[in-house]
Amino acid sequence: MLARTEHLFDDATRVTAGDSRWQGRTSEDYWAFVGPFGGVTAATILRALIDHPQRSGDPLSLTVNFCAPIAQGDFDLDVRLVKANRSTQHWCVELTQGGTEVATLATAVFAERRPSWSHQQAQLPQAPPFEQILPYPKVAANWVNQYDFRFVDGNPDLAAPIKDAPASAFSKLWIGDRVPRKIDAVSLMSMSDAFFGRIFHARRELVPFGTVSLTTYFHADAEDLAREDISRVLAVADGRIFHKSYGDQIGELWSPGGRLLATTTQIAYFKA
Amino acid sequence: MLARTEHLFDDATRVTAGDSRWQGRTSEDYWAFVGPFGGVTAATILRALIDHPQRSGDPLSLTVNFCAPIAQGDFDLDVRLVKANRSTQHWCVELTQGGTEVATLATAVFAERRPSWSHQQAQLPQAPPFEQILPYPKVAANWVNQYDFRFVDGNPDLAAPIKDAPASAFSKLWIGDRVPRKIDAVSLMSMSDAFFGRIFHARRELVPFGTVSLTTYFHADAEDLAREDISRVLAVADGRIFHKSYGDQIGELWSPGGRLLATTTQIAYFKA
Repeated sequence: MLARTEHLFDDATRVTAGDSRWQGRTSEDYWAFVGPFGGVTAATILRALIDHPQRSGDPLSLTVNFCAPIAQGDFDLDVRLVKANRSTQHWCVELTQGGTEVATLATAVFAERRPSWSHQQAQLPQAPPFEQILPYPKVAANWVNQYDFRFVDGNPDLAAPIKDAPASAFSKLWIGDRVPRKIDAVSLMSMSDAFFGRIFHARRELVPFGTVSLTTYFHADAEDLAREDISRVLAVADGRIFHKSYGDQIGELWSPGGRLLATTTQIAYFKA
Repeated sequence: MLARTEHLFDDATRVTAGDSRWQGRTSEDYWAFVGPFGGVTAATILRALIDHPQRSGDPLSLTVNFCAPIAQGDFDLDVRLVKANRSTQHWCVELTQGGTEVATLATAVFAERRPSWSHQQAQLPQAPPFEQILPYPKVAANWVNQYDFRFVDGNPDLAAPIKDAPASAFSKLWIGDRVPRKIDAVSLMSMSDAFFGRIFHARRELVPFGTVSLTTYFHADAEDLAREDISRVLAVADGRIFHKSYGDQIGELWSPGGRLLATTTQIAYFKA
């Protein structure tokens, strides 16, 4: 079922190793309206760290601050290991274009995930199987078309702007790559930013929107993910507040078998 | 009601301005078992940014990565404005001691909060008034004694380790400074890390524990907070998973009047 040749997501997040400076390039396949899809930018940063010769352990957390638009074309990743302990590594990554100002600033923690007492308090949200739900239709934004979104709750009806009370910002949906690809940390990172803006749901219309800061925690290491061997996740997202041009989002990415793989939060700008 | 002289929290988070390098000092009042309380470290970093002559706008998000223990005494804050746009600023702060390795790495976003459509989807958790609940007793950790914790739900009974099923990781409580102090962004930052470790609740015992990465979003600006004019918040926290030595936490800080002031998440190491 899974694609055998290189997947377009791997092409989009490809990096070329440098010493402390790595190179990448924006992808037409994952282009959003005014720049690359932020999830792929975040995933590219994570890939550079995973591929780094000094890296040890698995990704535990990644925070990405989107400082300025990224133009189509090449970019540099200035990758710095800030501090390493016996079991954790702290990284800082700056994305620049043409050697000038920072467009994206990220910090990451990697950790050796040692066996421990284990308990998953949260419960897998209930949902009909992926196969029983129609895919979200193709749209004008390239990046959206690289994903297979199947909405269980909160299917966005963006053609019916709210008149009185705000609509719910909650969504529950299956997310897979449109060309199936086995879920790994890099694709989880991208999917953690693949929810539509909560403001679109709450207002039932598209408005100017941009993620400002995104944080994702990984609750499964490479071994856990290999054991899951899945190509899609069940995802839930919600927003708690929209105020003075900024709104929040929280989300969870679950394996179909019921394991919480990643949790995420972001704060985003909107104009409405 | 509010203290008129300088509050010990302000003393604990005091910074001395430098050019790009600021100075601070750990506080005995907010000492935890093996280092300063992380919330005060985060608050000190936020204070340095708020006091910085180049700062404009209000804090929107702060992520703090705790890389290594901080020893008792002086520390330096290397404060860098990475990128500024018309309405947002992106900062990076490194905390070092003795000019050597980075102990704490933080990124922050400040923003001019412009008027917009406003909607608070989340609802104020129900709770009896602060005055009707007994304060949490004094304990051996100094920092805990600087806060007035009044538990509504999840009062930790740490003397009864679980035998079979894990206990709930959920808590609902009032948090104020023990010596009352008006809530501002700096104290919200500290309070967002003032929840007890979720693992203590889930296992009903103290185990080795340390926050690795903490992210807090601010949903009220200085003007909003001045209007609230409060000295305590209603706080809720929960954990979703404990796995391979790391567990997560999500939390919300509410004004007594029902405004969501800040949301927070963290990932923490535990040994159990």
